[in-house]
This record gives sequence, C-alpha cells and structure tokens, in this order.
Amino acid sequence: MADDHTLTPAANPTLIELTRGDMVESAHRGAAAVVDAGGRVIATWGDVERAVYPRSAIKPLQAFPLLETGAADAFAVGADEIALACASHNGERTHVDAVTAWLGRMGLGESDLEGGPHAPLGQAARAGLLRAGAPFGRVHNNCSGKHAAMLATARHLGEPTAGYTSPEHPVQRRVRALLEDMGGTGLDDAPLGIDGCGIPTLGMPLRAVAHAMARLAAPEDLVPARAAAARRVAAAMAAHPHMVAGRNKFCTRVLAAGGGCVLVKTGAEGVFTAALPGSGLGIALKIDDGAVRAAEAAIAILLLRFGALGGRVLDVLAGHAHATQRNWGGTKIGVLRPAEGWPG
Amino acid sequence: MADDHTLTPAANPTLIELTRGDMVESAHRGAAAVVDAGGRVIATWGDVERAVYPRSAIKPLQAFPLLETGAADAFAVGADEIALACASHNGERTHVDAVTAWLGRMGLGESDLEGGPHAPLGQAARAGLLRAGAPFGRVHNNCSGKHAAMLATARHLGEPTAGYTSPEHPVQRRVRALLEDMGGTGLDDAPLGIDGCGIPTLGMPLRAVAHAMARLAAPEDLVPARAAAARRVAAAMAAHPHMVAGRNKFCTRVLAAGGGCVLVKTGAEGVFTAALPGSGLGIALKIDDGAVRAAEAAIAILLLRFGALGGRVLDVLAGHAHATQRNWGGTKIGVLRPAEGWPG
Repeated sequence: MADDHTLTPAANPTLIELTRGDMVESAHRGAAAVVDAGGRVIATWGDVERAVYPRSAIKPLQAFPLLETGAADAFAVGADEIALACASHNGERTHVDAVTAWLGRMGLGESDLEGGPHAPLGQAARAGLLRAGAPFGRVHNNCSGKHAAMLATARHLGEPTAGYTSPEHPVQRRVRALLEDMGGTGLDDAPLGIDGCGIPTLGMPLRAVAHAMARLAAPEDLVPARAAAARRVAAAMAAHPHMVAGRNKFCTRVLAAGGGCVLVKTGAEGVFTAALPGSGLGIALKIDDGAVRAAEAAIAILLLRFGALGGRVLDVLAGHAHATQRNWGGTKIGVLRPAEGWPG
Repeated sequence: MADDHTLTPAANPTLIELTRGDMVESAHRGAAAVVDAGGRVIATWGDVERAVYPRSAIKPLQAFPLLETGAADAFAVGADEIALACASHNGERTHVDAVTAWLGRMGLGESDLEGGPHAPLGQAARAGLLRAGAPFGRVHNNCSGKHAAMLATARHLGEPTAGYTSPEHPVQRRVRALLEDMGGTGLDDAPLGIDGCGIPTLGMPLRAVAHAMARLAAPEDLVPARAAAARRVAAAMAAHPHMVAGRNKFCTRVLAAGGGCVLVKTGAEGVFTAALPGSGLGIALKIDDGAVRAAEAAIAILLLRFGALGGRVLDVLAGHAHATQRNWGGTKIGVLRPAEGWPG
C-alpha cells in the first residue's frame, strides 16, 4: 500500500516532457532504436528487445506483397495508390475516391473491406460529412488503402477475398513472412493481437522494426524483387505525401518537405518509424503510454539528430521537436520538448 | 547513448495497463493519494509530495467563493448553476443556455468571459454546431460555468470584471487563499502556470489536493461559512450530475449513479479527484503522461477499493475499472485494467 517504485522495474527513460509555466506537467517514457541496413545498432534508448505491436507504422512494409506478387501491375496500380496502401489517411475525398476506384477496378466494393467504419481522421473531412449528414463508411477507415492492397494480392493470386484479415489467410501469411525477412526475426512465437482495422498485428522488437525500415531505406542487399518493391514503395511515399496521411498531418508534412530524403510513418499507441535513404538508417520508437503527441515529437527529435537532413524539412521537424503549446485563448502556456539529457 | 534507465530516477509506479491480444501494449504510470479530512494519509502510490497542477479537478473548490462571498444568493444562483460552476461541461444546449442566462442576470455577456472559444467537448453538441454551421463561442468553453461564477464574485463585491483571470486579481487571490486553507499547504512559492481557460493554476502536492477533497466531503471542522459552502457544492453536484459534465461523460455517469455518496471531478493532463461524504475521504491522482483513459480507470479502481459504496454506482465504476476495448469492427481486442499488483 505504501509508496512503491518497483511495480515495473525496467522503466524506459523519459523521452518527451510537457511544461506548463514553472514546471514539467506531464512526461512520456519510451524506447527507440536506430539501426542500419546491415542490422548494426547505432543507438537505443530503453528496452528495444521487448516485443511491441508496430501497428500502422509498418504499413510501408505491409505494402510489399502488392508489388512482389505482381498485383500492382496486373491492376494498373499507380504510385498514388501505392502511397495509399502505406497510409493512415484522413478519409478526405481524394483518399476515399481513390480507394473506391481501385476496388472497382478489381470488381470489388466497399463491402469487401473487412475494416470497420469510423469517422474520418481528418478534422475537415469529418466536419464535411457531418455537415452533409453523410454516414461514415469502411472506405473512410484510415486503413482502407492497405485493405485495398491486401485484397489486390488475393484477387490477383486467385485466393478467396473473404476472410483476408484472418491470421491464417495467405494474405496475412505473406505479410508475416515479409516481416520476418525484413526484420531478421522469427515471428512464430510472436505475441498476436488484432489491429484497429481487424488484421493481425504481431509483436516485434523495436530493434527488428528499425532494421526492417533501414532495409526499406537501403534495399541493395535484398533479393531483386524485394529490393524493387522497396524502391517503388519509397518512391511512391515521397511522390504522394498527401496520400499517406492528408491535410495537417505530421507524416504528410514531413514527407512533403523531405523530398525523398526521409520516409516517416505513424502507428497507433505511440509507435513511429522512419527510413532514411540517404544514410541507410531505420528508426523505430514506441511511447510507453501510447501518446501521439510524444511519438511525433520523439521521431522529429531523432530525425534531427540522425537524419543528416537539410533544407525545409529541418524547420518542419524543429517545430515538432520543440513545440510551443497555447491555450484556447492563444496564450503560450508551455512547450512540448525532449526530456533533459535525451537523446544525448 | 546506450540504454539508460536512470534519466528519471524516481519513477512513479504503473497504475493502468492496456492489453491487446497476447500482451500489454501500453502502460500508464502515476501517483495517487487517499487522505481523510484530518489530513491523515490512508494510502499513497508514487510521489504525492511533488507539485502537480490540479487543473479542472479542483473546480468544486474554486466554486466556494461564489457561496462564501454571498454572490450566489445576491444573483439568485440555483443549485444547477452551482453545479455548472464546478463543471468541465460538454457545451450542450443546456449548459450554454444556463451560462448565457446567468451572465445576463449579472448584466454581463459572452464577451466578458476571458476563456477562449473551443469546439464543445460533447461529441453530439459539436456535431450539432457543425451541422448548423454555427460558430464555437466562449460559452462553449468547458470552463464557462466556472468563469461565470468567478465573474459573479467580482460583480457582487464591486471589483473590476475585466482581468479577473489575472493571478493578481482579487478573484484569483480568493481562490488561492481557499486552496491554501483547504489543502493545508502554503502556495506562495507554488509553481504557477496558465490553465487552458486562462486562469492561473498552482502546483500543489497530490496529498494536499486529496486533503482538500476530504474536507469537502467532511466539512465539520471548517469555519461555518466554509462548511456551508462545501455542503452546497456537494449537494449541487449530486443533484445536477448533467451540469457537471454531460452526455456520455464519466463524471456525470458516476455522480448520477452515486446518489450523493461520491463526488468526482476530472482535470486535464490526467488529474482526477474524488470526495466521499460517507467515509470522509478525499482522493487525488495524476497520470504522469496525462492520459484521460488512465485517469478515469484509476479513479474508478480507487473508488471501488476505498469508496465503501453500494448499489448501481458499483457497476458504473466496474465498467471503467476493467474496460473491454473493441476495434472499429466491434471485435474485442483487449482490456484497460489495473496494472498487476495495483492498488494492492
């Protein structure tokens, strides 16, 4: 009953803190790994060997089978749609129309998507639907592009489309094999959970996730078909930042300003990944408590530290790495910033 | 650069964890105190002597001057309006109309409110305004009832109303003196911040906040005017749960089911307070990372453990203490629950 600091002995370090006036009001712990394409660990903080669910932060990897199976070429999938396959999108008209058209080209429709409906993540898109009295559908689910890509592989290979979200369906087996290869880690005994959109999510060490992102950034040592897939995914995300997220979203802002020098992807519960084609590094992090604000700040800080970046993206990242907080009246009340001593 | 677990040596314990499938996905650390009206510490977890900003969780205390100054009676303020003074409300029609009418009775209007405008916290209220194309005003600010109460004391005592949110204004000096008395703690050197609605927020030890809430629950030893104020605040919150928050909100649900046996109040950045008139206990907690979901779960768990409650409120609290999580498709994906060993 008394004060007990030992309930979770292996505490990850505090990465991000929020100040208000004279003091730190809130703090976010987490773990992060920076790894190169050969698997060499450049830097870590916290426990990067413990499994975490990478959630949507590995959508760029989950998109590989779309290319490797030949489904993308069979269905004339454009770079904008490959970017959409990697997206946690805002549910804006442009995203929804693209998913609808793509499904149509495969002879499928919204009812074939197995991810549940939710209000668009984009504030303007959500308000627009509310004003119009229009319902939220499965195409508005932020993962609908990834689902279209998964359906494309099943359709192309003559597999049943129904049940493609089941862990035992060939679609998900391909994703698992891909993750094992890219992360250099076996997943037979990996913790299994169900993602927000219904697909399986497998617990992986952050180090392995960072390694996989490094190989996306520097695919030279992958087998040719996989290296080609990595190059097409990277090029698509860089060329179509709006498709990867949307208006006012961190990933879109950083991708747009990065000009292909940095790929970033958010995941639920405080996960973030980055791939740096220039330096061949991959980054993966997870905020213990799942906070988006801290994950965005932390990936910005690590990209400033390890990205070897230049130009406009530095300003975008700096704005997230040390973010002035204002209240509803517009008064500055504090700052979201790296915790003292981090990342060192 | 290597793994470093010592950046924040005095880690608070993990109170709440979120599972997904086979493992814990996210975890929330925090501190909590259970104190009686005499100041006796019944139980604590984590560092309860470090200052935290209590934010909106002390609105029931900030409402005392409305009663103690005689402003409530001078302006015919009803119990529903006293509850609104303690509220972080949804910005529903019923809240907005009540604040507008109250301001009108004092010869004031929305422009006298110094808290900035924001979209109503209530999902239905927000959607309704969006559908109607109506703007969000200062009356929609979740703190507008507290601001009306603060304006009432200034108006009643002939003080200027402009600038009532300044730390040096008599309104805020009264609140500070009240908090010092109720919490049994000096605040001259307290960390000072600006709250979301523009008023000062003073850093206080959680133990002192819990003590103040215990004295709200059991005001027998307060001076008569203060004890009377405590009783009117407690009775108003119990009689008008909807005014304290609104549709689908934790505080309203617990107040409504509690029948006067338990008062609860949420605050931003993961703060929660409770006052238990039956047992004379006060509770205050802060989740380190500021997460609402964890603060609600933690206060529910502590109320089940220390509330000596019965009846329908137990079901409401149990639903928050161990909350099944579902994804957008309605599939059960995990549970939000107390961390292993907590609260013991």
